[in-house]
Amino acid sequence: MSDDRTVLSADKVTHQQLRELGQQLRVDSIRSSTSAGSGHPTSSMSAADLLAVLVGRHLRYDWNDPHEAANDHLIFSKGHASPLLYSVYKAVGAVSDDELMTGYRRFGSRLEGHPTPVLPWVDVATGSLGQGLPAGVGIALAGRYLDKLPYRVWVLCGDSEMAEGSMWEALDKAAYYHLSNLIVIVDVNRLGQRGPTELSWELDRYARRAEAFGARVLEVDGHDVADIDKAFAHAGEPDANRPTVILAKTEKGRGFSEVQDREGWHGKPLPDDMAKRAIIELGGERNLLVSGLRPQPSGRPRRPEPGAGQVRMPTYTRGAKVATRKAYGDALKALGTRLDVVALDGEVSNSTFADEFAQAYPERFFEMFIAEQQLVATAVGFSARGYRPFASTFAAFLSRAYDFIRMGAISQADISLVGSHAGIEIGADGPSQMGLEDLAMLRAVHGSTVLYPSDATAAAALVAAMADQPGISYLRTTRGAYPVLYPDGEPFPIGGCKVLSSTSADQVTLIGAGVTLHECMTAAEALQRDGIAARVIDLYSVKPVDAATLTAAARETGRLVLVEDHHPEGGLGEAVLEALAGQGLSGTAVAHLAVANMPGSGTTAELLDEAGISADHIAAAARRLIGGGKPA
Amino acid sequence: MSDDRTVLSADKVTHQQLRELGQQLRVDSIRSSTSAGSGHPTSSMSAADLLAVLVGRHLRYDWNDPHEAANDHLIFSKGHASPLLYSVYKAVGAVSDDELMTGYRRFGSRLEGHPTPVLPWVDVATGSLGQGLPAGVGIALAGRYLDKLPYRVWVLCGDSEMAEGSMWEALDKAAYYHLSNLIVIVDVNRLGQRGPTELSWELDRYARRAEAFGARVLEVDGHDVADIDKAFAHAGEPDANRPTVILAKTEKGRGFSEVQDREGWHGKPLPDDMAKRAIIELGGERNLLVSGLRPQPSGRPRRPEPGAGQVRMPTYTRGAKVATRKAYGDALKALGTRLDVVALDGEVSNSTFADEFAQAYPERFFEMFIAEQQLVATAVGFSARGYRPFASTFAAFLSRAYDFIRMGAISQADISLVGSHAGIEIGADGPSQMGLEDLAMLRAVHGSTVLYPSDATAAAALVAAMADQPGISYLRTTRGAYPVLYPDGEPFPIGGCKVLSSTSADQVTLIGAGVTLHECMTAAEALQRDGIAARVIDLYSVKPVDAATLTAAARETGRLVLVEDHHPEGGLGEAVLEALAGQGLSGTAVAHLAVANMPGSGTTAELLDEAGISADHIAAAARRLIGGGKPA
Repeated sequence: MSDDRTVLSADKVTHQQLRELGQQLRVDSIRSSTSAGSGHPTSSMSAADLLAVLVGRHLRYDWNDPHEAANDHLIFSKGHASPLLYSVYKAVGAVSDDELMTGYRRFGSRLEGHPTPVLPWVDVATGSLGQGLPAGVGIALAGRYLDKLPYRVWVLCGDSEMAEGSMWEALDKAAYYHLSNLIVIVDVNRLGQRGPTELSWELDRYARRAEAFGARVLEVDGHDVADIDKAFAHAGEPDANRPTVILAKTEKGRGFSEVQDREGWHGKPLPDDMAKRAIIELGGERNLLVSGLRPQPSGRPRRPEPGAGQVRMPTYTRGAKVATRKAYGDALKALGTRLDVVALDGEVSNSTFADEFAQAYPERFFEMFIAEQQLVATAVGFSARGYRPFASTFAAFLSRAYDFIRMGAISQADISLVGSHAGIEIGADGPSQMGLEDLAMLRAVHGSTVLYPSDATAAAALVAAMADQPGISYLRTTRGAYPVLYPDGEPFPIGGCKVLSSTSADQVTLIGAGVTLHECMTAAEALQRDGIAARVIDLYSVKPVDAATLTAAARETGRLVLVEDHHPEGGLGEAVLEALAGQGLSGTAVAHLAVANMPGSGTTAELLDEAGISADHIAAAARRLIGGGKPA
Repeated sequence: MSDDRTVLSADKVTHQQLRELGQQLRVDSIRSSTSAGSGHPTSSMSAADLLAVLVGRHLRYDWNDPHEAANDHLIFSKGHASPLLYSVYKAVGAVSDDELMTGYRRFGSRLEGHPTPVLPWVDVATGSLGQGLPAGVGIALAGRYLDKLPYRVWVLCGDSEMAEGSMWEALDKAAYYHLSNLIVIVDVNRLGQRGPTELSWELDRYARRAEAFGARVLEVDGHDVADIDKAFAHAGEPDANRPTVILAKTEKGRGFSEVQDREGWHGKPLPDDMAKRAIIELGGERNLLVSGLRPQPSGRPRRPEPGAGQVRMPTYTRGAKVATRKAYGDALKALGTRLDVVALDGEVSNSTFADEFAQAYPERFFEMFIAEQQLVATAVGFSARGYRPFASTFAAFLSRAYDFIRMGAISQADISLVGSHAGIEIGADGPSQMGLEDLAMLRAVHGSTVLYPSDATAAAALVAAMADQPGISYLRTTRGAYPVLYPDGEPFPIGGCKVLSSTSADQVTLIGAGVTLHECMTAAEALQRDGIAARVIDLYSVKPVDAATLTAAARETGRLVLVEDHHPEGGLGEAVLEALAGQGLSGTAVAHLAVANMPGSGTTAELLDEAGISADHIAAAARRLIGGGKPA
């Protein structure tokens, strides 16, 4: 492909050639988006000179081996500038002009509207603004503390996205962890989607903010190739202690007078006639091929390896009272012999019990303080480098990071999230601390796994399983200590469930998990005393759910009581209904008990009773279903 | 109650008396939390002197009339310091010592573990850190631009929560909107839950950040009553253009030597013996009664009134193609004649069509730029002042604010959220921009209303209904333009649905909303050509859902095809299953079609087909159900 192309090599390329390369990137951004009939050419044109200098002279990347561990990382936090990114891929010879012109934004193509890791050179999906930088912080953390490789992480940010608090969480953590390998380039083109940005071209105001958050700040004219080159060279020589923020003053639509620095051109491809005029004004099509810098090969495998350490999972005595959150801490610490396992927490590690890992493996534990967005983004960044991160906080506070979890799934991240203090079970702290939406939130994430153990044995087994589970995995843990139900070695396959008691005489099945499983067991005993045989199912795997066992229980007992310490929508109950619907739910009578009220403070027992999810309510619901007769 | 209490009046109170009041607040914080057996006394003790000076000398509040519109606002962003807040309520005579001692954190009491508006003096629920200040910005915005009253908003923040990006979104917007009526007090006590904070006592670093974000910063010794008094007086004289941030250096557990400035005492009540020693060291119990400042009564009603303007909703011609997002904009603008209706958007108002309102009523439109957390928090703050805010962005990006929505429900906020660009229907932009989890997320919120119109007539009617709906209401709008289905004046009650075609011969019911309703109609036509009568239901109200009509359809046709442009979990499909389960779903065969794949870019038609939710797939699913025979 490169035969007829002028090759720009990093050691010989001139500033004039880089200017030409910038024009090529503009032309190709226009061509691809006009051809697709959608996209963001003007947002690409503002950053074209920045990218020309970066890939032409500074980025160390082996485009033939995107899995080389020593490669620099290039993240478009302003993911809508995908025409520019893909034009860069063409310029380095990674994609063909034909793919760019016929693939961009088309069905089935890997050149999606916003970058995702269906492309091998993309670390994380972007397009929800304010997420590329946080994920980049995760990769830079991995580079400095885990990989211990000299790669740099270059993140192109838009100026509009600096309004997202997540950007400041990211810079704060970058400075706290001395991420001198992080270089943040802000394309200050002054114009957002619907008009001017908050801070317009006031670079000094951005500078004061970034400096106050601990960054080294360089200001450049984003269209002066020499100025950019100098700044990148300076940024590439790491400051010992700080990330670098390069503020580049640019013009949106730069290079085409009909749109340059004008409002009303965000996210609009140029019509054919304008595109023609633009390409003429930009000096026509070019076909420069960049032969940039390559890193010193690391000799590392594609992913960090677990190492030879033996994992010895904790064991528990049946009947002993152990909180599942404690079992999480125990199991995570046990997994620490695996060198690819890392842990993070949001300043509550003494509540989630992540502190057990932190004490045993401080070099692989990262405190994110109270910044849940960055907590999840760091995990996504670690996953991009092949690590297996466990990120924990209260279940309620994972809701702070929902957009990051959603995007993590698009990023194809393999991460384990752990939410403690689930539900009204927590008692006196009140509703702000009660995770009552977490099952719904996590179930709705594409490809997710949602686990909810009822005892310590199950919790530990599921933690071990999560470490090798693809996608977004979620473990819901409980505050209080409840009896250990299962013997050491009991298997808990993801997608399974446990039938605790089962006879052919069962008239009803009680289905719960966590605290409600224990309430179901108590209810079954009460029903037993009344001569009613009740099957009890521990639904520790909420997604995927064991449809076969649930359907069998529905068929055999004809009645189901579904009980969850969660709001009624989207949780365990609806997971069961969905599973049954898929199997033809003929004639099953269902009672669904969940937290339909707004709870306040109180003891666990008071709150379970008030919400109608205690053993007494479960037994009563079962009796009502049976009193109603076996449905046809 | 105040008969035997020494009264401190604001005009005569001495600094020595304020010191005594501070000690009383500490003693009462210890007494209440020890009596409850849980709570955060040390986090209360650090801020006791700050609160003593504030309520003793500066806060303008009529404790007998919390609905007086001219009252200052006092928000504990560090909601875990509830012992201090409730001790303040005792000090001003609003709650009795008996209630404090027997109610705190007890079941059924209004003195919950973290403050909520079950108390008349609480504007917004706090306890999820980093939310009180953002909501306070909303109230201060209302004060300056809507109420036009001279009240001040005083927000007590913890130092740990300054790690949340939302705090910086809030300060940024406070400065942008010149909220000189906002006074942020940061209790810098150096210790978080599990150890030291990121910035410890480095007040200068906080100062640089707050100044860079546009605030006036004052630093004080948080235990020097004279110093605090001076700073509050200065802060209370508004700077013309800026919010004020008071950085108070304090000690956690201040006043009791056994815990003061020590780690390991976060969130722990003092045991009885320690509490006794603490109270002795603090000089014993006191019973001072604060008679503070009152505002000049405003003469305003409790809530802003809609005014006499006539609302003339837009009308649409049947068959014309109109996007529901456009109808949202039209309807919102029409509602603008109501003076209590305000609108906000996250820098995408030309996509959500909120810009129609912005152009017509610029004085009641607030641009939040790309800061979705602050977008929702501002709406919650406006609701606390009785306004009816509509906040819009892409459905996908509301996930950024899920914790704020969840807390909004605990705050008893009446707000309307509008998410545009729902689902894969948007086409080429790709998955980062596709709201595919929003129905699950919003359904799981306590007391929420979830609406999903299929045409412009329905959208406009539902917008009108939302303006008077209590709680969190959500409207899901669609990018593309589809035919208007309903005549002008058609009623769309919340909780209803529309049966588009129905005969006694119907063999199957097709249920959709938004784009899938249109696909269902096309499928029904195709089935009709095959001689199969299909009922079609427009499920515009996803929560509450019309269980009666759905159950009737299930009974009468025996087969349901549920189709949604959303991931399979927690959305329209599960809402229907839940409704049927509550009614005994005897013998209904169900096919649930949803977006189970990870979509990429493409045209709407390509993506609907790939996901299996297009008319062809719907008709095929119906045929499969019928081919399977009518279930028993």
